Amino acid sequence: MSDTSLTAAVDLGGTKILAVIAEGHEVVGRAKATTPRTGPDHVADAIAASLQAALTGTGEPDATVGAIGIGAPGRADGGMLSHAPNIPGLRSPYPMAHAVSERMGGIPVVIENDVTVATIGEQTRGAGRPYRSFLGVFVGTGVGGGLVLDGTVYTGRSAGAEVGHMVVDPRGRPCGCGGRGHLEAYAGKAGIEAEARRRVAAGERTALVDLTERKGKDRLTTGTIARALEAGDPIAIELIDDAAWAMSVALATAQNLLDVEAIVVGGGVADRLGPAFVARVAEGMTPQLFVPEHAPRVVPSELGDLSGATGALVLAERLSPDRIP
Amino acid sequence: MSDTSLTAAVDLGGTKILAVIAEGHEVVGRAKATTPRTGPDHVADAIAASLQAALTGTGEPDATVGAIGIGAPGRADGGMLSHAPNIPGLRSPYPMAHAVSERMGGIPVVIENDVTVATIGEQTRGAGRPYRSFLGVFVGTGVGGGLVLDGTVYTGRSAGAEVGHMVVDPRGRPCGCGGRGHLEAYAGKAGIEAEARRRVAAGERTALVDLTERKGKDRLTTGTIARALEAGDPIAIELIDDAAWAMSVALATAQNLLDVEAIVVGGGVADRLGPAFVARVAEGMTPQLFVPEHAPRVVPSELGDLSGATGALVLAERLSPDRIP
Repeated sequence: MSDTSLTAAVDLGGTKILAVIAEGHEVVGRAKATTPRTGPDHVADAIAASLQAALTGTGEPDATVGAIGIGAPGRADGGMLSHAPNIPGLRSPYPMAHAVSERMGGIPVVIENDVTVATIGEQTRGAGRPYRSFLGVFVGTGVGGGLVLDGTVYTGRSAGAEVGHMVVDPRGRPCGCGGRGHLEAYAGKAGIEAEARRRVAAGERTALVDLTERKGKDRLTTGTIARALEAGDPIAIELIDDAAWAMSVALATAQNLLDVEAIVVGGGVADRLGPAFVARVAEGMTPQLFVPEHAPRVVPSELGDLSGATGALVLAERLSPDRIP
Repeated sequence: MSDTSLTAAVDLGGTKILAVIAEGHEVVGRAKATTPRTGPDHVADAIAASLQAALTGTGEPDATVGAIGIGAPGRADGGMLSHAPNIPGLRSPYPMAHAVSERMGGIPVVIENDVTVATIGEQTRGAGRPYRSFLGVFVGTGVGGGLVLDGTVYTGRSAGAEVGHMVVDPRGRPCGCGGRGHLEAYAGKAGIEAEARRRVAAGERTALVDLTERKGKDRLTTGTIARALEAGDPIAIELIDDAAWAMSVALATAQNLLDVEAIVVGGGVADRLGPAFVARVAEGMTPQLFVPEHAPRVVPSELGDLSGATGALVLAERLSPDRIP
């Protein structure tokens, strides 16, 4: 029996799956799982299992939902997921919407890029609500962006708002995409880790790498960044200074080009570094703004790690037989 | 007697005024004048006199036009012109549309920013015609930009598309706006001249400055840049290399952010340096593009020094009692 007052959303990441069930705007169930590394069919299985676990968490395991929204890393077009190097085994376009729908008894499924979905989350129920135009910047392993112009999410020909690949220093650090000096190489967790490891290889020492290895992790975490900063680690301080500087350069350039009302800064790294980091970025932008007296509001995201799931819920609601206004 | 099949346009610059009369899409009269340095009332007088001279040039000096469009440097809002440091004596917002209308017997006048107008010219009758989305970049004394998204000119909150103030080198040359390392400081004629004069002050020699002084000019011209390049002047070659490099960095960043179909490059400097310069810029962008296999077309403007007047004509036609389709 389908209860169309319930909607479901999935935030699919390279390491974790977050499933939530909402009644109206209220989240009534949630569940987490690890993203399988054994191919997209297994990812679809895990998504369905997470959704079922989240439903069970609502106390009504037999209820079903009106629609399911999924935010996923990569390109999502007509239900197909592609260009998702963080989803192991997903090499060619995969019909993820259909695969999940099939496993969930034919419930309609919509899938969209994770950063676009997070931007929709902040636009509809987060820090972007007061603005007709804003740039969402999500600083995590990489740096993603979403652009809302005149109330509508703008994605260009599908690859727009790649804020992480704005050039901040043309002779600077190599970027994972093959470019040089892109924002992501300075502000993204992977870029910070790569630079920390280059320093260590050159004979320096930093808690960023020491703590990562002591904890037996294979990747730098936001928690480790925070602890290295608290411990006064000089390289951690320098690399976060670099991150704030790179954010300031890129966002001033974006503002001079787009003249948006606001910039919303979210993502795991920015959330962990908090409003003080966002304020530093805003301060650093000022000298590079063309119209500094008409600067954008630069604000932290409101939804934190729920921006993605919230945006996916909004997409599911739009698809739902009984639309929630 | 008003002949509403005629429209008029004015391209108002800091040194020159260009007035054109068109019948349908065909330019049937044109006139040039020097921009007075004695305040905006005299500028309005000179615009009216140029329009009258252009009308005389059509062979029907007694004909009048249906509407007049003006492209002007600065901010144009509701007929008021402001923020126009290149129009001597224009210190506070000045009712330029009204002033010109009054001098032309009450004909409706529309005024818009010169770069926006040039973008509209390229969009409707120039190199932008095939595209729903493109970025227009006009390289002259400074570097201006216009953005067409989904068929509509996008200007943000009125200060958007300031391509000239994208940061290309955060530790680089000072920009006239107070920022550092902006595109305009490398590719704009004023930026090229400032750097050439810094080199001369530091004991170097360049034809860019020698030729300017020999001709008794107070400002570097595009003709002088072209002649210095032809003569193999090493500093001229280096500074134009820098200009092409800065254009590549800025336009790759803009593309990664906007994912437009095309980039149209115009303005006096780019027009003079020709398609080879535009091709160099496009080539330089490739390594910095996030989706190089989906690069934008990078094309020279088609209308050259008529982009502004053409866009102003289009605005006049839209205002005309008998709209030309």
